[in-house]
Amino acid sequence: MALFIKQLTIIGVGLIGGSLARALKDRDMVGEVVGVNRTRRSLDTALELGVIDRATNDVVEGVKGSTMVLVATPVRSIPKVIEDSISGLSPGTVITDAGSVKGALVDKCEAILQPHDVHFVGSHPVAGTEHSGVASSFSTLFEGSRTVITPTKNTPSDALQQVRLVWEAAGSIVEIMDPHHHDRVLAATSHLPHLMAYNIVNTLSDLEDDIRAEVFRYASGGFRDFTRIASSDPTMWRDICLENRGAILDMLNRFRKDLDKLSVQIETGNEDALYGIFARSKHTRERVLEERKK
Amino acid sequence: MALFIKQLTIIGVGLIGGSLARALKDRDMVGEVVGVNRTRRSLDTALELGVIDRATNDVVEGVKGSTMVLVATPVRSIPKVIEDSISGLSPGTVITDAGSVKGALVDKCEAILQPHDVHFVGSHPVAGTEHSGVASSFSTLFEGSRTVITPTKNTPSDALQQVRLVWEAAGSIVEIMDPHHHDRVLAATSHLPHLMAYNIVNTLSDLEDDIRAEVFRYASGGFRDFTRIASSDPTMWRDICLENRGAILDMLNRFRKDLDKLSVQIETGNEDALYGIFARSKHTRERVLEERKK
Repeated sequence: MALFIKQLTIIGVGLIGGSLARALKDRDMVGEVVGVNRTRRSLDTALELGVIDRATNDVVEGVKGSTMVLVATPVRSIPKVIEDSISGLSPGTVITDAGSVKGALVDKCEAILQPHDVHFVGSHPVAGTEHSGVASSFSTLFEGSRTVITPTKNTPSDALQQVRLVWEAAGSIVEIMDPHHHDRVLAATSHLPHLMAYNIVNTLSDLEDDIRAEVFRYASGGFRDFTRIASSDPTMWRDICLENRGAILDMLNRFRKDLDKLSVQIETGNEDALYGIFARSKHTRERVLEERKK
Repeated sequence: MALFIKQLTIIGVGLIGGSLARALKDRDMVGEVVGVNRTRRSLDTALELGVIDRATNDVVEGVKGSTMVLVATPVRSIPKVIEDSISGLSPGTVITDAGSVKGALVDKCEAILQPHDVHFVGSHPVAGTEHSGVASSFSTLFEGSRTVITPTKNTPSDALQQVRLVWEAAGSIVEIMDPHHHDRVLAATSHLPHLMAYNIVNTLSDLEDDIRAEVFRYASGGFRDFTRIASSDPTMWRDICLENRGAILDMLNRFRKDLDKLSVQIETGNEDALYGIFARSKHTRERVLEERKK
């Protein structure tokens, strides 16, 4: 099944939306790309850069005539954006998104669209840089990255297949996962590490003046990595916390229990326990590297 | 003042000791390098690789005739190693180390050496890779890195100057700091981030089988960075925790308080507070990047 999308609408033309448009255009897999944004500025930039062919602030206008729609707006706005677009959508249209949280979101979007015979297939492209905005987009962003697609029992197989082909065309490796399971996996692999990086950076920002100056100037190894990890879009992370609250709180609680144990071992100077904690983590690293070779 | 060391002894010929020997040899700044290790194996490797010129298991034998000694063994063993070497040391010799903790260690080593008119000058080369051992050493490890030197009121200025020249010769940027202040700065910039990375990796290793498999296979973005950060030598990290206990526990407590606040904001769904937390961290990142330009 070859992919050619006559008209693709991208709602939210930023890093992700812009990069997907570029990737599909580069590979001649799309006819016209219509960009929808609330503000005019990023649409103008997107037009200038040739990322989109037509621009509108009107979401109903924007989706008219498209058989495929990507909603690449912040996670929490997705159901509302989809609701607003309904009167422009034709039956059979496939809508996907790029949100980092899937469970409840997929349920909501499906419920909104099913009565209109429009198919929602959740996507989470696990890609990005610390930059945002369409000016930072580039056609190879997804190459070699993973995209999780989260169909439900209601997803028609050809709608799933179309969404799969879109991400594969952009160079991504597609993985199929249950939406709620996706949220637990991401809470562990992405949300927990990012939140702890944010937490470290903020803890260090609160240090007394005398030492903070040096901490910032220094910013060697570990700390530099952490400030990079903890510098993505604040709106995105706020939304992730609100939308994936349950799985995130579970991970934070597990983390805190381990942190308490570690503190006790340091406080009591338990040499063997400390060695065990660090040796175990090193061993995990080796297993992760092995898994990635497969 | 040009640097040429007729005979340099390196006790603990691993990644750091080996890389310094290579750097000084490459620049013709050293005559003979004597390597001392407890086990024979790494000495044989070091000899084969040309990192050292002479090898011995006997620390007294090893330091004889050297005017400069680097002790690059795990932090906690340094005072003992120095004590064992005393009968081989000549007055006026300068000893430095490569330990990641300085405060109490510097006090101890000074106290041991002062009666023998040997000068201890603490060094902490902030460099390294996740690999250890002399086979991983290379002459450019220190290029562009920072080395903190921690003199005290007892340090003769020419001893300090010699140690400074050694690290600068290896390509490092030298910074002078009070030993105890060093420990607080490092607890913040290096120890806290590393320990939290270890903690995350161990928390995830404890997940139930069904999700852990995916977490490991996935190991995308954040998590992969963390397993790399959390894969250094377990002995080194055990020693850092034991030797820098006070400053580390202080940082862990600050971190935990912030973590508790973050958890509450997520639990109560406080949108504005969450946005503030993430925006603040992004702002810190920008300040860190600015500081580094200076």
